[in-house]
Amino acid sequence: MGGRKLSDIAAALSSAVSGDGDLAITRLVHPADAEGPGDLAIALTDEALGHLATTRAGAVVIPPGKEAPAGSSAIPYRGNERIALAILSALFDPGPAHEAGVHASAVVAPDARLAAGVSVGPNSTIGAGASVGPGSVILANVTIGAGVSLGRDCIIYPGVRIGDRVEIGDRVRIQFNAAIGADGFSFIPVSNPDGSRNGIERPMRTHSLGTVVIGDDVEIGASTAIDRATLRQTRIGRGTKIDNQVQIAHNVVIGENCLICGLAGIAGSAVIGDRVVIASEAGIADHVIIGDGATVAATSGVATNVPAGAVYSGTPAIPHVQSLERYANTARLKSFYPRVEDLKKRVEALEKASEGR
Amino acid sequence: MGGRKLSDIAAALSSAVSGDGDLAITRLVHPADAEGPGDLAIALTDEALGHLATTRAGAVVIPPGKEAPAGSSAIPYRGNERIALAILSALFDPGPAHEAGVHASAVVAPDARLAAGVSVGPNSTIGAGASVGPGSVILANVTIGAGVSLGRDCIIYPGVRIGDRVEIGDRVRIQFNAAIGADGFSFIPVSNPDGSRNGIERPMRTHSLGTVVIGDDVEIGASTAIDRATLRQTRIGRGTKIDNQVQIAHNVVIGENCLICGLAGIAGSAVIGDRVVIASEAGIADHVIIGDGATVAATSGVATNVPAGAVYSGTPAIPHVQSLERYANTARLKSFYPRVEDLKKRVEALEKASEGR
Amino acid sequence: MGGRKLSDIAAALSSAVSGDGDLAITRLVHPADAEGPGDLAIALTDEALGHLATTRAGAVVIPPGKEAPAGSSAIPYRGNERIALAILSALFDPGPAHEAGVHASAVVAPDARLAAGVSVGPNSTIGAGASVGPGSVILANVTIGAGVSLGRDCIIYPGVRIGDRVEIGDRVRIQFNAAIGADGFSFIPVSNPDGSRNGIERPMRTHSLGTVVIGDDVEIGASTAIDRATLRQTRIGRGTKIDNQVQIAHNVVIGENCLICGLAGIAGSAVIGDRVVIASEAGIADHVIIGDGATVAATSGVATNVPAGAVYSGTPAIPHVQSLERYANTARLKSFYPRVEDLKKRVEALEKASEGR
Repeated sequence: MGGRKLSDIAAALSSAVSGDGDLAITRLVHPADAEGPGDLAIALTDEALGHLATTRAGAVVIPPGKEAPAGSSAIPYRGNERIALAILSALFDPGPAHEAGVHASAVVAPDARLAAGVSVGPNSTIGAGASVGPGSVILANVTIGAGVSLGRDCIIYPGVRIGDRVEIGDRVRIQFNAAIGADGFSFIPVSNPDGSRNGIERPMRTHSLGTVVIGDDVEIGASTAIDRATLRQTRIGRGTKIDNQVQIAHNVVIGENCLICGLAGIAGSAVIGDRVVIASEAGIADHVIIGDGATVAATSGVATNVPAGAVYSGTPAIPHVQSLERYANTARLKSFYPRVEDLKKRVEALEKASEGR
Repeated sequence: MGGRKLSDIAAALSSAVSGDGDLAITRLVHPADAEGPGDLAIALTDEALGHLATTRAGAVVIPPGKEAPAGSSAIPYRGNERIALAILSALFDPGPAHEAGVHASAVVAPDARLAAGVSVGPNSTIGAGASVGPGSVILANVTIGAGVSLGRDCIIYPGVRIGDRVEIGDRVRIQFNAAIGADGFSFIPVSNPDGSRNGIERPMRTHSLGTVVIGDDVEIGASTAIDRATLRQTRIGRGTKIDNQVQIAHNVVIGENCLICGLAGIAGSAVIGDRVVIASEAGIADHVIIGDGATVAATSGVATNVPAGAVYSGTPAIPHVQSLERYANTARLKSFYPRVEDLKKRVEALEKASEGR
Repeated sequence: MGGRKLSDIAAALSSAVSGDGDLAITRLVHPADAEGPGDLAIALTDEALGHLATTRAGAVVIPPGKEAPAGSSAIPYRGNERIALAILSALFDPGPAHEAGVHASAVVAPDARLAAGVSVGPNSTIGAGASVGPGSVILANVTIGAGVSLGRDCIIYPGVRIGDRVEIGDRVRIQFNAAIGADGFSFIPVSNPDGSRNGIERPMRTHSLGTVVIGDDVEIGASTAIDRATLRQTRIGRGTKIDNQVQIAHNVVIGENCLICGLAGIAGSAVIGDRVVIASEAGIADHVIIGDGATVAATSGVATNVPAGAVYSGTPAIPHVQSLERYANTARLKSFYPRVEDLKKRVEALEKASEGR
């Protein structure tokens, strides 16, 4: 709890200290919340800078040229504010509270293999033949199924469910109540939308014999569900980050370093490239293919493939530029209808004049 | 189990009894479901009144002027049907079944402080330094993190997860599997939608050092997630009610007495006023500000600020009156295109006639 | 583990074996994943057939006329590929791993009634007076409330919450973290969208005194929530299948053999017929009635009743044919505006000519 030296923090930002580089910092705060010399306030936005004059922080991160409050040390920082926040917040995150070792109330199958330094919290359950890599933290009230493979330095939050045989890489974080490896929702309907029958009297179940494979450095949000594949693997590529309450169906394959935002849904067998951003509440239809680096706007419904690098929006989603154009065209109708009405009257007048001749 | 006197129930409705005011009522039911004299049937809608003649209820709540079934007492009630149902249902709600005290299978940290009358259900976990106010009921399979502060007379349903250091007021109800205090989904993407790069090779994590603060009398629905703030507090104001599967991102501030309906999503740093209604499946973009008393219609996508008292709908959301107008204008196109086609022919005819001269 | 005879598998498909009918099959796989003679590869799609030449499967299911790889037995199959997959996947699904009997860490109320062959997993909780039918499997970290009635041969996955008094039929499967029987989200708002006040200062709660009744053969997805009714029963009809993260509000009545896809929301008191398909992210407004055999397209917002057999799409949802037409009409505006502009110029020219005469 001695804190980090201000000069070390400045170094993490590739910046220098103006003032006391030996100052021990224990918290990163908004300038309005600072309480004393151990607090480092980050003030790189106009909103935060508005609190600079009255902050009680011992040190501040400020844009170059800004003056630090009297008596406070400063790290003048020239870069991107969001990147500074990412770097600094990582230095001061305590992570979730937990105790070392396996809690007495946890139920760990005799043949499960827990590496050195694994923590298993109260009332958690680890199934037969599961393995957990070194340094991973399984918090309270978690269920790890039989035959699950979980890598090293993972953090599994309370209430997470990991189904039998799911494979998870290293440094994966899974937030509260996420569910990995439920059965796919794969039913043949009694009849199709065109009214044709499928020759069955009730929905027919396709069982999910496959599994889910989660790459290294993936993060999965609270209450998100990722279903197992029918025969093969539902796959989430390395470095991809998934927000809360996202639904990822059976057989979906997602590439690396994607961002999938809250309440988005990706239907069965869709294939998502690398570095794709799918914004909140967007829906991707089954079997759709989305190219590398594409962006799908919030609330869009994607029913066709999206080329690499494209930005799509609307329902059904089309290139965003076209989407904006159509939207503007619709808004223009209000003033347009009267103009056509006017045109009609003028044509009638011309016709009358013409008849008169 | 002696039940409530019919005259006391009538008083709660500011109404009188016609019949036996001493009748002991043990259940509030739909008239079709009544089984005997202890049942009070509420029949203030046409649908329910249709079952009045055949009800076996000992007493009925009916509009003034309606005749009670033979042998049944009645509370003639002049007010709003929904308000009557709210008042009466509160009188007969048994609440979730639970036992007094801390169950032997619960794991409560030695330094957690549980006030008098707190119930902790089987297989629940309470972290180090947490405190729970008098009369609160924590049901089975719950996780309360380290340093959590939970007020008095709260009801925490099975499967709820409350992260470290989250602060919750009095009389708060949190339904099954809700998650309060997961990390925010705050990642810098590799590249922006315009194709510009952020100078990083993989999404960069901003850690969530802040917390969540939930006011008094808030209710939170099943599987809803409320993420912790980056530096400060995600806040839910007093009296606000949140439905199931709502996603509330980091840094969001919601005012008092709002209603947020199912599957709605509120993105990072949005600010919602008091008495706002956000209907089902609506999405609010990040940093948007919604004024007091505004309403956002179901499935809308709000990308701009909404003034106080306004009703917005559509995606992107605009004032509802304009939204309806645009919708009507689009529907009108079908009959409009042929009329313009007709106009074109008439212009051509005029042109031909004009050339002929 | 001796596997199934290939001839028995062929019989399940009403097909014959070409090759060794006595071959013991232990796994159903994609042809690319086959590892040896015990693997049966299903190759009825073009994609899978592309891997046929190199498969290491001992046997293959192929369209009639296709040639099996050298040394491999075959089941030539003439029917629907999806139906074959449904039939075969059912034969090889091991189901979730679990142990017989009640785990020592489970907390079962003394008066709960567990039939023969019931399995209750670690850290699960079963409330007072609950009953569980023969052969049902309750996995780890589940909560079954007081007075719940659960039928025979059900599978209840980890993290499922079933509220007090909920009734569930036979052969029901409920996936991870689903929540059945939370309180309905039923609040009278302070003011209505038209600005009129309801005479209250804060949202007023209607309590949920009713319950949820789930029919036989229903399936419920991960993180789905089904709320209890106000006075009567929220009902899910026999054979209906519900995907992940679906929200079903209080008083909703759903018929038999429906499919409700991921992230769909059904608001209070809606009535859904039999064999209805509600696609992903669709929203159904409160009190709406949807007829038998209707289909609601993905992301639609249904605000009015839908006739039996109809296909509706869009927001607000209209018949899909009209929806497509309106969409096309909007797209056409881009080329249409210049044509009207042209028409206007021609009218002006005619007017000028006319004036000149």
